[in-house]
Amino acid sequence: MKLILAIVQDKDASRLRNEFIESNVRATKLSTTGGFLKSGNTTFIIGIADDRVDEVLSMIKKTSQARQEYVTPPMNLDASSDGSITSPVEVQVGGATVFVLPVEQFHQF
Amino acid sequence: MKLILAIVQDKDASRLRNEFIESNVRATKLSTTGGFLKSGNTTFIIGIADDRVDEVLSMIKKTSQARQEYVTPPMNLDASSDGSITSPVEVQVGGATVFVLPVEQFHQF
Amino acid sequence: MKLILAIVQDKDASRLRNEFIESNVRATKLSTTGGFLKSGNTTFIIGIADDRVDEVLSMIKKTSQARQEYVTPPMNLDASSDGSITSPVEVQVGGATVFVLPVEQFHQF
Ligand code: NI
Ligand code: NI
Ligand code: NI
Repeated sequence: MKLILAIVQDKDASRLRNEFIESNVRATKLSTTGGFLKSGNTTFIIGIADDRVDEVLSMIKKTSQARQEYVTPPMNLDASSDGSITSPVEVQVGGATVFVLPVEQFHQF
Repeated sequence: MKLILAIVQDKDASRLRNEFIESNVRATKLSTTGGFLKSGNTTFIIGIADDRVDEVLSMIKKTSQARQEYVTPPMNLDASSDGSITSPVEVQVGGATVFVLPVEQFHQF
Repeated sequence: MKLILAIVQDKDASRLRNEFIESNVRATKLSTTGGFLKSGNTTFIIGIADDRVDEVLSMIKKTSQARQEYVTPPMNLDASSDGSITSPVEVQVGGATVFVLPVEQFHQF
């Protein structure tokens, strides 16, 4: 048994949660606020058998890893603007910080 | 010193908290949302001496273990209903998921 | 790598957070409610290299340790009061509870 603590961006949390449900991984979601990652974060506490740790790490990486996305900024309404459509800009989103902790006892009552 | 992480149903949290206070067990309550258990969950972080771990596990089990309760569903107002009083149904409530973690250092400042 | 779990009073949390940012310590803030300490608490999860654990413990101690402060109670409007200005009283504020936990794996995706 291991305890995995995974801190992901809020925007990736529901997709990751669906992965956990699909794969019968028991996870509890804590509400957290920024720190490790720029925007709002969600922390998952996951209890998992030793032989499934790599599988869970893969799910976290797949849904939440840092990546580039193109975002179109809102149109510039400034007087000095020529009113032309703004171009999409590349921004980094996602990212996950993950701790795997040893567990001395695990109980379900 | 051990760190006990206990995830219980919201409905059992205040009774468990009272047990902790009564027994001078220092616990911090995190707000969490579903996952391990069906309804809303509360997570407690408990710092405890090694020789009191079993005592804390007993408190959690006593207040929070899964059990059957009888609930009377709201009256059926459906047109197809005969308007009779609904019968109580058995539902499972409670349940606790508990991790005991090793601690390398413990400080109070 | 260690995981430090630090529970401090809400009133000390933003100063501690600034210390972490200044020193490039990656911390995630959880919202928590009382227990270890009298008023509202904030829990930080901090991932840190082994050789910086003492430095982080010093930051927590410096910003959050229990201390005496003088507080002037609101004026007594009771009929039996002589209307004189109340005297400042000494109250204890702050205090931190800190766990240092071993980490088996640490990943950033
Ligand atoms: Ni899938
Ligand atoms: Ni009792
Ligand atoms: Ni400083």
